[in-house]
Amino acid sequence: MTYLDWASTSPPNAAILEEAAHLATSAYGNPSSAHNLGAEARNRLEEARLRFATAIGARKSGRVVFTGGGSEADALPLLALLRQALSARRDGSIKALHLVTTEIEHAAVYEEALLLKTLGIGLGLVKAESDGRVDPLKIAAAVNKDSALVSVMAVNNETGAVQDIAGIVAAVARASADLGRRPPRIHVDAVQALGKVDFDPAALGISSAAFSAHKIGGPRGAGALWIAGSFEPLAVGGGQEGGYRPGTESLQSAWAFSRAAEEARAGLAERRGRARVLETRLIAGLSAQIGAAILPLGRAGGDERYSPFILSAAFPGLSGEVFVRALSDEGLALSTGSACSSNLRKKGRRVLAAMGLDEELAFSSIRISTGPTTSESEIDRFLEVAERLYRRLKV
Amino acid sequence: MTYLDWASTSPPNAAILEEAAHLATSAYGNPSSAHNLGAEARNRLEEARLRFATAIGARKSGRVVFTGGGSEADALPLLALLRQALSARRDGSIKALHLVTTEIEHAAVYEEALLLKTLGIGLGLVKAESDGRVDPLKIAAAVNKDSALVSVMAVNNETGAVQDIAGIVAAVARASADLGRRPPRIHVDAVQALGKVDFDPAALGISSAAFSAHKIGGPRGAGALWIAGSFEPLAVGGGQEGGYRPGTESLQSAWAFSRAAEEARAGLAERRGRARVLETRLIAGLSAQIGAAILPLGRAGGDERYSPFILSAAFPGLSGEVFVRALSDEGLALSTGSACSSNLRKKGRRVLAAMGLDEELAFSSIRISTGPTTSESEIDRFLEVAERLYRRLKV
Repeated sequence: MTYLDWASTSPPNAAILEEAAHLATSAYGNPSSAHNLGAEARNRLEEARLRFATAIGARKSGRVVFTGGGSEADALPLLALLRQALSARRDGSIKALHLVTTEIEHAAVYEEALLLKTLGIGLGLVKAESDGRVDPLKIAAAVNKDSALVSVMAVNNETGAVQDIAGIVAAVARASADLGRRPPRIHVDAVQALGKVDFDPAALGISSAAFSAHKIGGPRGAGALWIAGSFEPLAVGGGQEGGYRPGTESLQSAWAFSRAAEEARAGLAERRGRARVLETRLIAGLSAQIGAAILPLGRAGGDERYSPFILSAAFPGLSGEVFVRALSDEGLALSTGSACSSNLRKKGRRVLAAMGLDEELAFSSIRISTGPTTSESEIDRFLEVAERLYRRLKV
Repeated sequence: MTYLDWASTSPPNAAILEEAAHLATSAYGNPSSAHNLGAEARNRLEEARLRFATAIGARKSGRVVFTGGGSEADALPLLALLRQALSARRDGSIKALHLVTTEIEHAAVYEEALLLKTLGIGLGLVKAESDGRVDPLKIAAAVNKDSALVSVMAVNNETGAVQDIAGIVAAVARASADLGRRPPRIHVDAVQALGKVDFDPAALGISSAAFSAHKIGGPRGAGALWIAGSFEPLAVGGGQEGGYRPGTESLQSAWAFSRAAEEARAGLAERRGRARVLETRLIAGLSAQIGAAILPLGRAGGDERYSPFILSAAFPGLSGEVFVRALSDEGLALSTGSACSSNLRKKGRRVLAAMGLDEELAFSSIRISTGPTTSESEIDRFLEVAERLYRRLKV
């Protein structure tokens, strides 16, 4: 199988999984236990936490909370809004609170934001520009006196568009000052940024950032939330992970995630350079194919506004879903966009629509995503098969 | 290390962890992906789900949702109360909803219940009887017209007391009929029941049951919620796990949990028989020690009201915490009670206090918990070391 669906999930690093499984067996104590086996597990867990913090450049600031995945890491600050709204409730009514996010967020944030709206949290939804990026001034304009949280992704999972987080932080700060209030908390879904583009949570002035292990060769079901400052979580229990995530900690998952993050950080420059070469080859090859269009329209190879690991392209006259299945039958694994959205059974393509893209183009798009072991010959094979299939299948 | 802290966590089955790590590497696709690698991961995930459902005797009823741990499985139905209360909100005020639970629940339920109370959910808290069991009639008496959920554990994690779930279901049904209403949903925290005592969720008439992998030789960070019927979850996202748990599914965790559950089910009768032998030996040995007391007072070996895998005992005049550390220094791993509570830094011993136990006895108690590989010589070693240390350390 030629695997070009790394943004959905990555082939795990077998050596790291084996190392973690071995550690799980040897340091099997409950990290909360008072005895020596508990202390050993606790020490290894904190070792993993420090390694992960170092890998995200936050060894000396904030706190790392290990979670059961990236979606859970995104949910923590969003669900906390309910606790904040209800804790301050007067006369049986909930406090007016407001959330600002975008229409291009991953389902973990977007679907939860829509649900929170039905539960009484105000919601400001910002669209993207035609280049796939969100205008920081539009985020700032959505902030009002009740805004408690702004949630924006670092890298879009369908277009690869790198969002201007620093610009958003600055614009939100200015808008808040104009309103005579302190800035709201800013959460960043950094799942597609980790190990792929420069992302330095501790330097950005954000409140939290969510990460996922399985996008960078770590195990599925492992995530992390980096937190600056603190917030009151909605799900509580045994007080693990500083009270942010109840449940016995998975040393195995935390260890494997920290090792994968460490390797991704060490190899970032080299991996990104290779990905740029593949991206340029892919864009050149697709641009030469009659009818195919790079998305966002006008994206060129080497453009720093996009992660080189993710590229969407449209094949007008051919449904992206049909194309993906035909490619799979030829031994090529790709997706139409977010794998996570495939469960939602909704019509249309939300992210591309939020950029104002023509419906026909959006409907015919597929996503090509690469990883550190993707080769030029795999790109060439995709280009060859895609051209052949598109000619045969387009209407 | 002589490990007698199986109720905190169990040494994992190394062969199962290795099998799961191998599967994670070979079937690495995202189960939500449309291509063949996604389908393969999806098929193996559903295989694990069916195996787990079979292991809990629910192959043909309800639904299994894999979670990131037992605490998360407990949180799902509790957090859903907030969605229910807020969805039905009128004029900015939240709907009156009520939760009934007990004072002997695990922190995953108890601490969340206390938090929900501060957020506007009514709370009925029921104490236990002196034998560690909750009277079904007291649960039923706590049900009122607004009660939406009853949450009771199957086996207490400190005393081993097996709760009368069938009796609770029947009593709640009668009380609900008397109130002219349908019975509330009934959630059961079955973490200490799985693979240890008879527990048949599909036959009990309950709404949901929570399970944890790492108590039965599976990995930490893996849990499951069995659901009869349906409810509206508070955390949503990409629609995975039937919409109950957002995030890319961990095939590795689900697979390992299903295999551990399968083995626990197959070996249940033999394991329980061996645990009874150890329990009887332990109770006889402790009863012969001057000053030591079995908890709950009067518990005898072979009593079906208690899980044979869990025993608490008091050593008056010696702090349980001090005792546990002294035992650890002698190479024996035990705990004072729930490992999860050790993070909470609260004074006192909630579970034992809820049974009306004298504070001095509660304060001096420790928990001995065994597993399938615990030997009689390990029990004897504990008895010998405990007697020696107690004589030396008691005031």
